[in-house]
Amino acid sequence: RKEYDDEGNLIICRLSEKRRVTVQDFRGKTLVSIREYYKKDGKELPTSKGISLTEEQWSAFKKNVPDIEKAIRKMESR
Amino acid sequence: RKEYDDEGNLIICRLSEKRRVTVQDFRGKTLVSIREYYKKDGKELPTSKGISLTEEQWSAFKKNVPDIEKAIRKMESR
Repeated sequence: RKEYDDEGNLIICRLSEKRRVTVQDFRGKTLVSIREYYKKDGKELPTSKGISLTEEQWSAFKKNVPDIEKAIRKMESR
Repeated sequence: RKEYDDEGNLIICRLSEKRRVTVQDFRGKTLVSIREYYKKDGKELPTSKGISLTEEQWSAFKKNVPDIEKAIRKMESR
């Protein structure tokens, strides 16, 4: 079953209590967002702390996941 | 050859002219950041527009990449 936030965006996952990954349609363009939310009057609303990637930026990002992994492993091994 | 920013963080890739993905060591903890930068006096400095993920959050995020892809494809097909 799919979960949507109070603005109708599809919640992909939660990274922490406040942080979420969502996929949304913004004026006909698909955006992937990683963002912090806060609670107000029982609703969870997005803060400015986060970033929304266009599809093009998402594609570039995705291609670099293996390099991110490699960099983390290298950093950990120091 | 590796590229580092003016703060010594490893630049993994650029998502746009202003947006970058970096991996950094912050007080002994590894952070993956997706963030916008601006230029000042020839230096490129990070803005508050972005997010820095802990390793735990990065792991959770990574696991969900296929679901993000699926959601994008579904949105595109509408």
